[in-house]
Amino acid sequence: MAGNTIGSLFTVTSFGESHGLALGCIVDGCPPGLELSEADLQRDLDRRKPGQSRFTTQRREADEVKILSGVFEGKTTGTPIGLIIENTDQRSKDYSKIKDIFRPAHADYTYQQKYGLRDYRGGGRSSARETAMRVAAGAIAKKYLAQHCGVQVRAYLSQLGPIKAEVLDWDQVEQNPFFCPDAGKVAEMETYMAALNKEGNSIGARISVVASGVPVGLGEPVFDRLDADIAHALMSINAVKGVEIGAGFESVTQKGTEHRDEMTPEGFLSNNAGGVLGGISSGQDVVAHIALKPTSSLRLPGRSIDIHGQSAEVVTTGRHDPCVGIRAVPIAEAMLAIVLMDHLLRHRAQNFDVTCSTPKI
Amino acid sequence: MAGNTIGSLFTVTSFGESHGLALGCIVDGCPPGLELSEADLQRDLDRRKPGQSRFTTQRREADEVKILSGVFEGKTTGTPIGLIIENTDQRSKDYSKIKDIFRPAHADYTYQQKYGLRDYRGGGRSSARETAMRVAAGAIAKKYLAQHCGVQVRAYLSQLGPIKAEVLDWDQVEQNPFFCPDAGKVAEMETYMAALNKEGNSIGARISVVASGVPVGLGEPVFDRLDADIAHALMSINAVKGVEIGAGFESVTQKGTEHRDEMTPEGFLSNNAGGVLGGISSGQDVVAHIALKPTSSLRLPGRSIDIHGQSAEVVTTGRHDPCVGIRAVPIAEAMLAIVLMDHLLRHRAQNFDVTCSTPKI
Amino acid sequence: MAGNTIGSLFTVTSFGESHGLALGCIVDGCPPGLELSEADLQRDLDRRKPGQSRFTTQRREADEVKILSGVFEGKTTGTPIGLIIENTDQRSKDYSKIKDIFRPAHADYTYQQKYGLRDYRGGGRSSARETAMRVAAGAIAKKYLAQHCGVQVRAYLSQLGPIKAEVLDWDQVEQNPFFCPDAGKVAEMETYMAALNKEGNSIGARISVVASGVPVGLGEPVFDRLDADIAHALMSINAVKGVEIGAGFESVTQKGTEHRDEMTPEGFLSNNAGGVLGGISSGQDVVAHIALKPTSSLRLPGRSIDIHGQSAEVVTTGRHDPCVGIRAVPIAEAMLAIVLMDHLLRHRAQNFDVTCSTPKI
Amino acid sequence: MAGNTIGSLFTVTSFGESHGLALGCIVDGCPPGLELSEADLQRDLDRRKPGQSRFTTQRREADEVKILSGVFEGKTTGTPIGLIIENTDQRSKDYSKIKDIFRPAHADYTYQQKYGLRDYRGGGRSSARETAMRVAAGAIAKKYLAQHCGVQVRAYLSQLGPIKAEVLDWDQVEQNPFFCPDAGKVAEMETYMAALNKEGNSIGARISVVASGVPVGLGEPVFDRLDADIAHALMSINAVKGVEIGAGFESVTQKGTEHRDEMTPEGFLSNNAGGVLGGISSGQDVVAHIALKPTSSLRLPGRSIDIHGQSAEVVTTGRHDPCVGIRAVPIAEAMLAIVLMDHLLRHRAQNFDVTCSTPKI
Repeated sequence: MAGNTIGSLFTVTSFGESHGLALGCIVDGCPPGLELSEADLQRDLDRRKPGQSRFTTQRREADEVKILSGVFEGKTTGTPIGLIIENTDQRSKDYSKIKDIFRPAHADYTYQQKYGLRDYRGGGRSSARETAMRVAAGAIAKKYLAQHCGVQVRAYLSQLGPIKAEVLDWDQVEQNPFFCPDAGKVAEMETYMAALNKEGNSIGARISVVASGVPVGLGEPVFDRLDADIAHALMSINAVKGVEIGAGFESVTQKGTEHRDEMTPEGFLSNNAGGVLGGISSGQDVVAHIALKPTSSLRLPGRSIDIHGQSAEVVTTGRHDPCVGIRAVPIAEAMLAIVLMDHLLRHRAQNFDVTCSTPKI
Repeated sequence: MAGNTIGSLFTVTSFGESHGLALGCIVDGCPPGLELSEADLQRDLDRRKPGQSRFTTQRREADEVKILSGVFEGKTTGTPIGLIIENTDQRSKDYSKIKDIFRPAHADYTYQQKYGLRDYRGGGRSSARETAMRVAAGAIAKKYLAQHCGVQVRAYLSQLGPIKAEVLDWDQVEQNPFFCPDAGKVAEMETYMAALNKEGNSIGARISVVASGVPVGLGEPVFDRLDADIAHALMSINAVKGVEIGAGFESVTQKGTEHRDEMTPEGFLSNNAGGVLGGISSGQDVVAHIALKPTSSLRLPGRSIDIHGQSAEVVTTGRHDPCVGIRAVPIAEAMLAIVLMDHLLRHRAQNFDVTCSTPKI
Repeated sequence: MAGNTIGSLFTVTSFGESHGLALGCIVDGCPPGLELSEADLQRDLDRRKPGQSRFTTQRREADEVKILSGVFEGKTTGTPIGLIIENTDQRSKDYSKIKDIFRPAHADYTYQQKYGLRDYRGGGRSSARETAMRVAAGAIAKKYLAQHCGVQVRAYLSQLGPIKAEVLDWDQVEQNPFFCPDAGKVAEMETYMAALNKEGNSIGARISVVASGVPVGLGEPVFDRLDADIAHALMSINAVKGVEIGAGFESVTQKGTEHRDEMTPEGFLSNNAGGVLGGISSGQDVVAHIALKPTSSLRLPGRSIDIHGQSAEVVTTGRHDPCVGIRAVPIAEAMLAIVLMDHLLRHRAQNFDVTCSTPKI
Repeated sequence: MAGNTIGSLFTVTSFGESHGLALGCIVDGCPPGLELSEADLQRDLDRRKPGQSRFTTQRREADEVKILSGVFEGKTTGTPIGLIIENTDQRSKDYSKIKDIFRPAHADYTYQQKYGLRDYRGGGRSSARETAMRVAAGAIAKKYLAQHCGVQVRAYLSQLGPIKAEVLDWDQVEQNPFFCPDAGKVAEMETYMAALNKEGNSIGARISVVASGVPVGLGEPVFDRLDADIAHALMSINAVKGVEIGAGFESVTQKGTEHRDEMTPEGFLSNNAGGVLGGISSGQDVVAHIALKPTSSLRLPGRSIDIHGQSAEVVTTGRHDPCVGIRAVPIAEAMLAIVLMDHLLRHRAQNFDVTCSTPKI
């Protein structure tokens, strides 16, 4: 209830601060018999890892994950999977000067007010470093979904500040440091980011995440709709300020005849729904989009207050991503995979006896 | 886990179908000592009630709520509050002809696939009629929040299809059938809706919901952030396809210097955050926006399939809102109030001993 | 979290006070497709109903349950099942004189302290009348378990004060007002109860509950063991002060060679475990025993205090069971059935892919 | 939901197998500001540690706990506390010969059936080694309860096989290897255990656990009564087969006049209730008793089957406690402390506004 657990049947409970000894999590509810090794998790961790390009923070973390339990002779046993990543490159002194100051758009002020004290080193628990464990846990969900259900969960950068990806070529996504699916926009993004770095500023981004091969029937009415749980999971990612399913905010100006996805015996004719009808997966691609705010840590001075309520100027000199959105690509995949995995188990539990006589389209 | 409960400490568990005997819910966790009567709930129920204007469905439901338990001598006792609304205007025969057909953009297809059978009368459990109970439960949360914390939760229609409200005058919201805060746009909306009705089509909408007076500190890192739980609650409303907190999708094109809300001893200088920093309320207004898709029930024919997988044409002749978004105003308020109430209790539980020496701005 | 829900996948959330308008509950998570009608619930409700013999309270309640939702054309739909029982024989005036006095061994004092106010009529929420909803909900679980898994859940009175049932003849259980499986002890029990009534006193009881046909594998390590969840569910019944699984407290004086249930290819040679090993069902009968305290409402005066802390004498003149244990038989069955049902769904969710190649004994 | 979490507001989620790399847990919901260091946890871990006397298993484990997160500058921060204990003395080869055999009264058979595979080394997840994390987590609860509420949680061995402790002298409990509060019975216990060791057999035990200073009002009706949650927590301890609150099974033969704890302005006159009325703490000592079965691992041969269903003889030669009950003393304390801590937070959440005007006795 203190909020460090997500999921109901496939649960991830995480711990760890930016500059503590280690980050870790417990993945509970993974079905037994899944082949699993550290390498399965490391691939996505490396995609999220800082220092991969000059457009992400230069903090150097090996982000090497260790599986401490729940896997025996190469297979999951059905018992909880303990994961740990030790922090190696902590550089705590970088942060000592902001100990008494609340950085604007950070959680410094709210943590201090909520708890009466806080671990100020690198944002402590509020640091996006915590998302490493989400990526590790999500990799387990992704593997199970892929192997047992043929579900594939992938994300990409659909917009970097003013620059929109116009083409969705999945093969391009892993070919550039932006996870951009539109090869024609990569050079423009590089130029934009270089100017931004020079300016000392940061920029927002839009990430799109897609799951294909999702079985019909995942999601629970009324409150735990699949889309509601996706919204929860994606909005829980640091810096996310908006979530859309399918047509999202375009629905506001759509007419009913335009929005409704007509069906034929061969399948749906469009996907404004984003693969969810009445909170339940329809078998179409599940499609979500998220808005990420620009990084708040800037070397351009900003007005703020200190813990005594006095005016203060904040200049952040640490190592930070100029666009946090970029590294959110594997995180968004992880969160969507965790939600789908959870709903797969929930669906199985209640609907074990259902043999559908109606057509799947 | 079957999804009909929301909240962790202040919980709402609902039951009931569009054309069943009754709708009901159990509100558990309401603190003892709150003065409460049916009249407190009825006001919001009447705002949501169908048949209030010619722009909403003409189904006539008294929507009279009864409190069955949890209130003694006019005050809550701390025990669960049972609420019930009997269905009176059911007209089941209207729906018999669509028994074997999946209406596009409805939950018919996904329910049938998930459960192997479904209550096809008026959409059964997937009907927005279920939201009446949310409004009733939300009214309890609203009353407690107002009386014990000075929190006010209000919503308005910020956009009807192409027509945006440009002015936010709270006094106007209850003065027109659209919950529109901009008196200058009401006539335009009436004309637009009349044309839409004639055409037989429907339109999407955008609703904004604002909580003022929210104490600093509500929300739990990491997964159960206040904004994540708001996203969950709002996305769980029928027809919602997108949720924004504060600047929302505008964050994508904002630079860091533009987005970050600077602080001075007198307070924040802007509210791009929407009142939430690091998942925790900052004391600013909590601001969220939602996108609602156009009503799917249209008298304009649409292509679909029947339960045997054969092509079918769907024409809906029942009574339906041409813009479901309008009546979502009190529902959005209810959902935000339920989330805030839940997080207020969660915050108290863990941070009982905290006496903040830091300034509240 | 306010405690009025039990279960995680098959959940029962209840409301209602002894002298309120109605009792009700929501059963969520029942699989779709189960044939269900009020008659299925009424049979067990009638077994629990007061006024059935002169050895139980003479309060007259029809205890007629209505199904308000979740069942369509005679089958469960997978959506929440709303149940309600209206209170008819309330006689509130009986209780007015104890409004300001805390009855010993009742919840009057603790409710008043916890909530600062209480519904004093008949104990309000703390009344055993609330268990009617457990019986109704349990009947759903019992029916599903019987029809889909061949599980049978039955209970009996194993001891009434000093009188032990020595013979377990299931056919006798429903043939006498004590649910006593030993026909030879019924006359003795009648004589004992008659003397007790004359004396104005009450007596404790021991109930045994047995589930046969339970599949191997139900129960989750580590905390949510099947036996731990059974202990929770049974201890939550009013007046229960002890729970045993299998050999229970006899285990204290057993040696290892005596307690361990040896296995042969034909099966287990004993059942000291009570059907649970390592928290997981073994396929043997699940066996539990509970101790119920004597009724606290007595016409023999007792010392107590009033709400001002002054000494007071309490004499209870209302209608009460001299042995609450007797009517606990169907309640114990209901609670065990609810736990088994919940764990059946939990087991299915995670172990869907398991095909055991090991022998079932 | 996979069962490795206990609690709702103060939660403990654990992982780890007997012979894996490490055991660990995440304690979530601990209020901020509690002074905490490893030494606070180590004291109870040392009390539970194997190899402390010749009456417990000779497996040598340092059981050194590390705090990985949630504590900053010596105080809890309100964020999750990650704990880890590395396994050092694993001796996996000891167990290889029982890889294919189901040890009687162990979880081997049920784990294999449930999951289709199992970590057979030392019982894997079903080993009581897991309880080390409960003790570590419980120590946090104990410290908070003691410092912030004056609650003291203590346990003792009330019976070892046939030998009952007749005297309750708390000062004696830590003075002998049995946690026996009756100095006059220690020699007898030593003699008994020596004979048992020679015989190669094991014996059951009864542990009593007491919390004093508990505030009035903890516990939630209806299902999550304090006593029901205590029963759940204590029954979840390995080898526990029975739980009693207060008079427990003695209630069966008590009359109402005997059982009911009368009240006077000076307080209660007895404590048959065990400190819980209507599921809510009364301010008296909370008293529970548990029955622990004898150790199942014996060097005396037992009949069983192997994973192919064939007859097999089992002789266990590893290092095992002849009476597992003894080391359960700190575990029982930990579990009771965790439940009280959880209910303290739950009570605060809902009853924040309550100022009792009624007397505390």
